[in-house]
Amino acid sequence: MIEPSEVAKHNSADSCWVVLYGKVYDVTNFLENHPGGSAAILALAGKDATEEYDTIHPSGLLEEYLDPKACLGVLSASAPEAAEPTRISSQSASKEASEETPLSSLLNLAEIEQAAKRKLSPKGWAYYSSATDDSITKIHNNLIYRSILPRPRVFIDCRECDLSTRFLGLKLGLPIYISPAAMARLAHPQGEAGIAAACRKFGAMQLISHNASMTTQQIVANAHPDQIFGWQLYCLKDVKRSEKRIAEINSIKEIKFICLTLDAPFPGKREIEERQKMEELRAAGAVLSPQVWGTDASLTWERTLNWLRMHTSLPIVLKGIQTYEDAILAAKHAPQVRGIVLSNHGGRALDTVSTPVHVLLEIRRFCPEVFDRLDVIVDGGIQRGTDVVKALALGAKAVGIGRAALYGLAAGGQSGVERTLQILADETATAMRLLGVQHVDQLSLQHVNTRLVDSQISDSESSMLNAESVEGAFPARAKF
Amino acid sequence: MIEPSEVAKHNSADSCWVVLYGKVYDVTNFLENHPGGSAAILALAGKDATEEYDTIHPSGLLEEYLDPKACLGVLSASAPEAAEPTRISSQSASKEASEETPLSSLLNLAEIEQAAKRKLSPKGWAYYSSATDDSITKIHNNLIYRSILPRPRVFIDCRECDLSTRFLGLKLGLPIYISPAAMARLAHPQGEAGIAAACRKFGAMQLISHNASMTTQQIVANAHPDQIFGWQLYCLKDVKRSEKRIAEINSIKEIKFICLTLDAPFPGKREIEERQKMEELRAAGAVLSPQVWGTDASLTWERTLNWLRMHTSLPIVLKGIQTYEDAILAAKHAPQVRGIVLSNHGGRALDTVSTPVHVLLEIRRFCPEVFDRLDVIVDGGIQRGTDVVKALALGAKAVGIGRAALYGLAAGGQSGVERTLQILADETATAMRLLGVQHVDQLSLQHVNTRLVDSQISDSESSMLNAESVEGAFPARAKF
Amino acid sequence: MIEPSEVAKHNSADSCWVVLYGKVYDVTNFLENHPGGSAAILALAGKDATEEYDTIHPSGLLEEYLDPKACLGVLSASAPEAAEPTRISSQSASKEASEETPLSSLLNLAEIEQAAKRKLSPKGWAYYSSATDDSITKIHNNLIYRSILPRPRVFIDCRECDLSTRFLGLKLGLPIYISPAAMARLAHPQGEAGIAAACRKFGAMQLISHNASMTTQQIVANAHPDQIFGWQLYCLKDVKRSEKRIAEINSIKEIKFICLTLDAPFPGKREIEERQKMEELRAAGAVLSPQVWGTDASLTWERTLNWLRMHTSLPIVLKGIQTYEDAILAAKHAPQVRGIVLSNHGGRALDTVSTPVHVLLEIRRFCPEVFDRLDVIVDGGIQRGTDVVKALALGAKAVGIGRAALYGLAAGGQSGVERTLQILADETATAMRLLGVQHVDQLSLQHVNTRLVDSQISDSESSMLNAESVEGAFPARAKF
Amino acid sequence: MIEPSEVAKHNSADSCWVVLYGKVYDVTNFLENHPGGSAAILALAGKDATEEYDTIHPSGLLEEYLDPKACLGVLSASAPEAAEPTRISSQSASKEASEETPLSSLLNLAEIEQAAKRKLSPKGWAYYSSATDDSITKIHNNLIYRSILPRPRVFIDCRECDLSTRFLGLKLGLPIYISPAAMARLAHPQGEAGIAAACRKFGAMQLISHNASMTTQQIVANAHPDQIFGWQLYCLKDVKRSEKRIAEINSIKEIKFICLTLDAPFPGKREIEERQKMEELRAAGAVLSPQVWGTDASLTWERTLNWLRMHTSLPIVLKGIQTYEDAILAAKHAPQVRGIVLSNHGGRALDTVSTPVHVLLEIRRFCPEVFDRLDVIVDGGIQRGTDVVKALALGAKAVGIGRAALYGLAAGGQSGVERTLQILADETATAMRLLGVQHVDQLSLQHVNTRLVDSQISDSESSMLNAESVEGAFPARAKF
Repeated sequence: MIEPSEVAKHNSADSCWVVLYGKVYDVTNFLENHPGGSAAILALAGKDATEEYDTIHPSGLLEEYLDPKACLGVLSASAPEAAEPTRISSQSASKEASEETPLSSLLNLAEIEQAAKRKLSPKGWAYYSSATDDSITKIHNNLIYRSILPRPRVFIDCRECDLSTRFLGLKLGLPIYISPAAMARLAHPQGEAGIAAACRKFGAMQLISHNASMTTQQIVANAHPDQIFGWQLYCLKDVKRSEKRIAEINSIKEIKFICLTLDAPFPGKREIEERQKMEELRAAGAVLSPQVWGTDASLTWERTLNWLRMHTSLPIVLKGIQTYEDAILAAKHAPQVRGIVLSNHGGRALDTVSTPVHVLLEIRRFCPEVFDRLDVIVDGGIQRGTDVVKALALGAKAVGIGRAALYGLAAGGQSGVERTLQILADETATAMRLLGVQHVDQLSLQHVNTRLVDSQISDSESSMLNAESVEGAFPARAKF
Repeated sequence: MIEPSEVAKHNSADSCWVVLYGKVYDVTNFLENHPGGSAAILALAGKDATEEYDTIHPSGLLEEYLDPKACLGVLSASAPEAAEPTRISSQSASKEASEETPLSSLLNLAEIEQAAKRKLSPKGWAYYSSATDDSITKIHNNLIYRSILPRPRVFIDCRECDLSTRFLGLKLGLPIYISPAAMARLAHPQGEAGIAAACRKFGAMQLISHNASMTTQQIVANAHPDQIFGWQLYCLKDVKRSEKRIAEINSIKEIKFICLTLDAPFPGKREIEERQKMEELRAAGAVLSPQVWGTDASLTWERTLNWLRMHTSLPIVLKGIQTYEDAILAAKHAPQVRGIVLSNHGGRALDTVSTPVHVLLEIRRFCPEVFDRLDVIVDGGIQRGTDVVKALALGAKAVGIGRAALYGLAAGGQSGVERTLQILADETATAMRLLGVQHVDQLSLQHVNTRLVDSQISDSESSMLNAESVEGAFPARAKF
Repeated sequence: MIEPSEVAKHNSADSCWVVLYGKVYDVTNFLENHPGGSAAILALAGKDATEEYDTIHPSGLLEEYLDPKACLGVLSASAPEAAEPTRISSQSASKEASEETPLSSLLNLAEIEQAAKRKLSPKGWAYYSSATDDSITKIHNNLIYRSILPRPRVFIDCRECDLSTRFLGLKLGLPIYISPAAMARLAHPQGEAGIAAACRKFGAMQLISHNASMTTQQIVANAHPDQIFGWQLYCLKDVKRSEKRIAEINSIKEIKFICLTLDAPFPGKREIEERQKMEELRAAGAVLSPQVWGTDASLTWERTLNWLRMHTSLPIVLKGIQTYEDAILAAKHAPQVRGIVLSNHGGRALDTVSTPVHVLLEIRRFCPEVFDRLDVIVDGGIQRGTDVVKALALGAKAVGIGRAALYGLAAGGQSGVERTLQILADETATAMRLLGVQHVDQLSLQHVNTRLVDSQISDSESSMLNAESVEGAFPARAKF
Repeated sequence: MIEPSEVAKHNSADSCWVVLYGKVYDVTNFLENHPGGSAAILALAGKDATEEYDTIHPSGLLEEYLDPKACLGVLSASAPEAAEPTRISSQSASKEASEETPLSSLLNLAEIEQAAKRKLSPKGWAYYSSATDDSITKIHNNLIYRSILPRPRVFIDCRECDLSTRFLGLKLGLPIYISPAAMARLAHPQGEAGIAAACRKFGAMQLISHNASMTTQQIVANAHPDQIFGWQLYCLKDVKRSEKRIAEINSIKEIKFICLTLDAPFPGKREIEERQKMEELRAAGAVLSPQVWGTDASLTWERTLNWLRMHTSLPIVLKGIQTYEDAILAAKHAPQVRGIVLSNHGGRALDTVSTPVHVLLEIRRFCPEVFDRLDVIVDGGIQRGTDVVKALALGAKAVGIGRAALYGLAAGGQSGVERTLQILADETATAMRLLGVQHVDQLSLQHVNTRLVDSQISDSESSMLNAESVEGAFPARAKF
C-alpha cells in the first residue's frame, strides 16, 4: 500500500512513478522506450494516469511492455474512478447530453461532424481533425469529387438497388468500409468494438488499426460469421514485436487479410496536434501520433514482402499507393499482393499531394491493366453518396471512411456509426438509382464525366519518367 | 352533426379523423395509401385539415381517393374559415402587404425571388427553393451561363426584334416557357391558373405539373385559343390511375403534348425540405415532395413508350435527358417522341450532375443530328435574358423557368408572373438586338464563345462509352 | 415678368412650364420630343430646372430644340443662383472640401475612384459607375489583364523611355487616350474642357462624346496646336440633325477623325441607374442615358458608310468591334475606315460578353492581317500601367480610359485628370523599363504570356462560323 | 562644442545641419547627392539623426561620402543615447518582449511572419512586406506551389535524409539559402551578422545585399571556414564606386561569387512603402528603397559582362532571369556566368509577372540544356518544405528565402533566423522522406505532377518569338 503523497514525489525523469488502475508503477527506466515519447509520461509523473492511459491503449499492453518488477504495489486511497475509467460518464451522461439533438435529426456527414466536434474533448478533436501543414490535401480530397460530373441515364428500371459488392473475393454488404484509424476510444468508450457492431448491421468491412485502443479479440468478439475484417500492419523497428503481432493475427479467423500501410513511413506535420500537445503537455498528457511509435522507415518491395511471406499466408493489401508507377509495381507482386488502397492518409502525410481520384485516373490513363490484377479501393474525402458512386465508377471496388466513422462514434457510439453508414448507404442507393444502375458493378466510366480532372493529370507518361527511377531500372510501361 | 371535441379524440393511427371543408372524414384506412405518406395526415389527426389540404390538392381529388363512406358527417360548430380556406386573406391582405414595394420596382429575377421569400410561408420557401444535397448543381445551373460569352455583331439593323418561336410546330409568343412545378397554390391562391393568365398575355407556353394544385380544367379555363399547354406525366405504380389521367388529358384540347418526366424516377435528397418537414410534422402538416407519390421506377424505353402509344396519340416530349447517349435514343424514337427537355430537375434530383448547357454541347459534339430530329428545350438556372439567348444560340428552341415563375406568383399572383415574364422578355430582346439578330432562329453558334465549357466536355466519345451500355448493345455513334 | 407662383401652377403634362436661366418656358408640346423622355421634364414641371438642365446639356441646345415662342418671359423674383448655375460652389467650395486629402496622396486609380465617389452626387456616381445587369463584363474587363503575364527581359538599356506613339499617322504623347463619355459636367463644372486641358499637358488624345455637356468649340478652345481630338458620332434617327452636326464637326480643325459608335445600338440594362432614376424622378430630374436619345438602330455596313462618305472626308474609326469577323469586315472598308476600337462599352451594353483582350487574341489567331490594315485601339478595364503595356504588346496602338478620366475630373477637375494621367503614364513607363523596351512600338508578343486567355478563345474558326452569317455570304477567311 | 539650439536653426535646404554619433555635420551641399534623396535628410534637418542613420547605413559610409570639412564639431550636451544608438533597447527590451511567446512555439513561417509584424516598426514592416502595385505576383509566388502536386513513392528506405547539396561546385548544408535583402538592421540590431551566425549552424549559403546595413567584413567576421557567401552587385551609375566595391569584395575570401542583380533596373511601385514614406517624411526620416540609390539602368550583356571580367575573376551569377530566352543567353556566357537566379524580386519589380516556377517550366520545355550549363536557383514565395522540394524536383539547385529570413531576424535575432531555417529544414526533410528520396539530387520530375502549371506556359515557342528580339538576331533555339 503506497500513499498518494509518496507517489507525488516521484514526478521527474530521475524518478518517475505513475498510478494505473489502482497500482503504482515505477516507469523511470521505461521513459525512453515509450513509443509515444517520454514527454507524454512525464506530464503525468507522480499522478494517476489511468484515464489518459486507458483511452488510447488496448488492454494487455501494460503487461507486454512493462517488467513485472515495475509494479511497486497498490495505491492506498485509490479513488474508485481511478480503478475504473470514468470517461463514459464524463462524456455521455453530461447534462447537455440530455438536451442534445437526436441522431435521426442529423441529415448528412457534415452535421455528424459538427455533433462530434461538440462532444469530443479538445485533444480528441485535434487528433482526429488534424492534417498536415495547411490541410490543402485534406480539403482537396473532398472537393475533387465535385469536379467529377455524374451522367444519369434515363428509362432504366431502378426499382431494385443492390449495394453489395466483392473485395478479394469476399462478399461485402456495402461498397463503403471503415478505414483503419487509431484510438477510437478517444471518441467513445465503445471504441473499435462499437464500430464493429455497427458494421455488422450493414455487412460493412472494417480495417482494424494497428494502433487500436482495444485488442483485436475485443473488437471482433461479436462479429457475424460473414463479417469481414482486415488488419492494418505498421512494420515496427522492433521486428520481433511485429512478427509476434502477425502471428497473433494469423490465429484470428475473422481477419481475412493484412493491410500494410506505406503512406506514412515518417510522420507528417500536423500543427493542430502539435499546438494541442504544447498546451496539454504539462497538464494532462498529450496524445501523440501512434504513427511515430517506432515505425520502421526502411521498407522495400522485395525485402519486406519476402519477410511478410514467411510470417503469414494471409492476402496482402498495400495501403498508400499514390502513383501509377507504384500501382504497377504492386500488380507485379500479385498474387501475394491482392489489392491496393489509393490513399494519402487522409491528408495527414504529405500536404498538397494529389487525391486518390487523381491516382485512379492516372492508373486509367497509363496502366488500366492494374484493375484486372488487383482489387483497388480508395479512401479520403468521402462525404456524400455521390462521392461513393463516382469512385466506384472510376474503378474502385469500395471506398473507405476514416474520420467520418470516428465522428459517428463520437456523436453516438455504435448508433452514431450506424447513422453515418445509413446516411451514406441511402445516398449511395439514391445516386445509383438516379444514374440508372441496379448493381455496384454496373457503375462504369460512362457514368462520369471526368474531363475537369483529366486536365490535371500528366498527359505524357515520359514527363513523369524521364528521370531515373529510385527503384532502379523501372520499366517505362510494365506489361504483365 | 359532429362535435369538434369528438373529432379531437380520433387523433392517432388507430382511429384518425380529420375535418375537410366542414365535413368530418375517417381516414384511418386511407393512412397507408396516402401518396404523401401517413405522417402528413397524422400531424393533423383530430383537427381541421382544410387549409393544409386545400393548398396543395386539386379539387376532386378527395372524391377520387376516398370511399364515400369515409365521410362521417358535418362538423357542428364549423368556423366559417374552415368551410372556405382563408389563405388569401392571411397572405395578401396582411398589414405589411400594404407597405410593400410595387412589382414595377423589382428590376430583375433576383429581386423577385427576394420579394417571394418575404411573402412565402417557411414551408413554401423550403419546398420551392430546396435542391439536393449541397445544391451544387442548382448553383451551377445558373453560373454556367456566365462561362458562355456572347459575340455581338455590329452594323446590323436591329430596330425590329421578334421573340416568337416554334416548338413542335406550334407558334409561341416567347422563347421562354413555364416548367412544370408542383403545388403552385403554396405560392398564391391563384395557383396554376394565375400562371396561365400571365402566359396568355405573352403567348407563352405552360407545362402543367402532374401534381398541380388545381385541376387541368381549372388551369386552362380562360386560355386564349392560340395558347399552348403541355401536360407533365409521372407514370404511377398504379398504372390504371395513370391511364385514367391520360384519358382525361386526351380530352382537353388545350393540351398539345405530353411531357413525360424521366429525371426523377426516385426522389433526390433535399435537406432544406427534410428539415422543414421535421419541424412541422407535429404541428401543421408538412409538405412532402409529390414526386414520391407513387411514381413508378421501372420505366424503360420500349415498354413505356409502347404503353403510352396505346393510350394517347398526343406527341411525346421526354423531360430529363442528361446525356448525349439518351438524346440519341430519344431521336431513334421519333416521330412518336417529338422533343426532349434537357433538365436536371432544377438540381433537385442528383447533385453535382452537369448542367443542361453541358448536355447541349455534348450533343453538339457527338450527335448534332439530334437537333434535326427533335425539338430540344432546356430548363434550369435561367436568370437573365443573356442566359436565354445563349441557350437558344446553342440549339434550344425555348428555355423553361420553374422556380422563377413560382416566385413571381408568390410576389404578386398573376401580375407577379407577368412581371417575371416581362423582365425576361425585355432582357432577351435587348440581348438579341445587341447581338445583331432580329428573330430567335437567327441565333446560332457564331453568337457564343463556348470555349470555357468546351473544356469541361469529354473530348473522346470512347472514354464515355468504353463500358457496356446499360441499355444493351448501344451503338457507338447512331446514324439515322 | 412672371411670378413663381404662376409658374408653379403649370406642373403637369397638360400644361408644363419650367424656368431656365431666369426665363420661363412652356415645354408642354416639347414633352414627347424630349430625347431624354418626358418624365425627366415632368419631374421639374412648375419649377426652376436650371441646375439640372445645365449640368448635362451643352449651351445652345435650348435654342436648337425649342421654338422661340416657347419662351414666355422672365421670372420676376428670380434668385441670382437661378440665373447662374451654382453647382461649382455647391460642389467644390463645400466645407469638407477644405479637409480633403490632396491629389498627390492618391497613389493609384482605385484611390482616385474612391475620392470621386465621395465627391460625386448620387446620380453622378450611379450614371458613371453603372454597368449592365450584374456587371460581370465590367469586372472582367479589368481582371482579364491579370491573366496576361508580362515577360521581362534583362540586360537591356532602359535609361530612356519614350511613351509617344502614333494613331492614324498622328503623333500622340501617350499611348493612353480619353474614351468618349457623356456629360462630364456631372462630375465637375470644368467638364470636357477640363479634360482637354489635362490632355494638353500630356499630348494625350481625347475622343469627344456625342453627348458632351459642352459644345465642341468650348472643349477644343484652348487646345495646343498639336493636340489631337476625335469626335464620337451616334447616328440619330433624325438623320438631318446628324448631318448638321457632322457638318459642324467638319469645320473644327482640331477634330481629326470621326469615331462612329456601334456597340450600343440599343441601351443595355443598367440597374444602378434605373434604381437611381426611380428614386429621383419625382424629386429632382433623373439622369437618363443620353444613349437612348434617338439613336438609330438601323445602321448597316454599306448604307451607313456610304452615307457618311457623302457628309465627311474625315477618317472613320469604328467603335465597338467585338468579334474577329467584324474586324475583318472593317478592314475590308479601309481606307475609308482607318481604325477600330475594340470595346464593349465599358460593360454597359451586353453583360457577360468577352473583353477587348479576348478580341485582340481572336484577331491574332484568325486574322492578324487586320493589324496591318487598321489601327486598333482598345478600351475598358484599364487600371494599371501593366494593363496598358499588355494591351500594347498584343497589338493595340493605344488604350482608352473612360470612367477613370471622369473620376479624376470628379476628384479634382483638370488637376484630377492630370493626376490620373500622370499615375498611368508613370506606371506605364516603369513597366516598359522593367520589360526592357524603350519605345511603345517595341512592345510585342514576346513580352506577354497569353496562355491563360488563349484557352478561352475558340480554337476552331469553323465552330464560330458554322452558321450562316447574318451579313449574308460571309467569307470563311477574308483575304485582302 | 556646438549647442543643440544652434543646430536647430539649420533646418532647411538653405542650411542643413544634422547630428550623427555626437558630432555636428553641415550636409547642405550633400543634399542633392544623397542616393536616398534629399527629402530623407531634410526630414531630420536641425536634429539628431543618429538612430535613423545608423539603422540602415553600414559603418564607414559617412567617411566615404562626406567631406571631412563637413564635420563642424562636437555637440555640447549630446545625450549618451545619441552617441550610441539605442534601437536595441527600444526594440528588444520592451515590456511586451518579456511576455512574448517563445520562438519554439512558432510552428511555421506564417507564424514567424506574424511575430515579426508585431515587433517591427511600421516603417520596417512597410519596407519588408511591400510589393509592387496590387501584390499579385507576391501572392502568386507562393500560391503557385500549391498547383504542383508531389508524387510520393512507397517502399523506399527513408531512414536517412541528407539535405546537403552543391552550388557552383561548393558544398551547402541546406538547399535553402538567404536571398540578398537590404537593411537587415531595420529588423534587429544584429543585422546581417545575425543572419550569418544562424547560417553557420546549418551550413546555409548567404547572399549579402549590396545595400546591407553592415560592412561585408562585419558580416563575415565570424564565419565558419566552410561557410559560403555570395555578394550582390547593383551596378551604379558611378562606375568608379562600383569598381572600388568590387575590388574590396575580391579581397574577402569568404565571398565565393558575385550575384549581379538584373531584375530591378528601375524601381517598381510599392504603394505600402510610398504611403509610409508620405506619413513619415516630415517626422522621422523615411526609408527609401536603396534600389534607387544610383543604380545604372544601362546594362547590356556584352558591355557589362566584359567590364565585370576586367574587375573580378569571381564566378558570376545573374539574378532576375524571368524568361527562357534570357536563360539561353546566360548559358551562352558560361563559363564566366556560372549560375542564374530565377526571381521576380519577390514581387517588388513588375507586378503580375509569372513566378519562378513558371520560368523553371519554360526552361524545361524550350531549353532544358540550360540546366547542364548553369546552376539554376530560385527565390520567391517559399513558405513550406513542400515548396522547397518542388522547386528542387523541377531542377533548382537551391531555393532562396528573403522576407522569411528578415522576419526570423525581427522575431528573435540570430535565434529567430535559426528557428526559420530549422522549420524549413525539418519540413523539407519530412517531404523528402515521404516522397521516398534520401538525397537532394534524387529529386526529379517524376516526383511532381506539373500539369496545372504546364497549361499556363506557352505551348509554342514561336508564339513568344514571332517578334523581333530586342537583343538583335535572337536565335529561335540556341544550341550550345
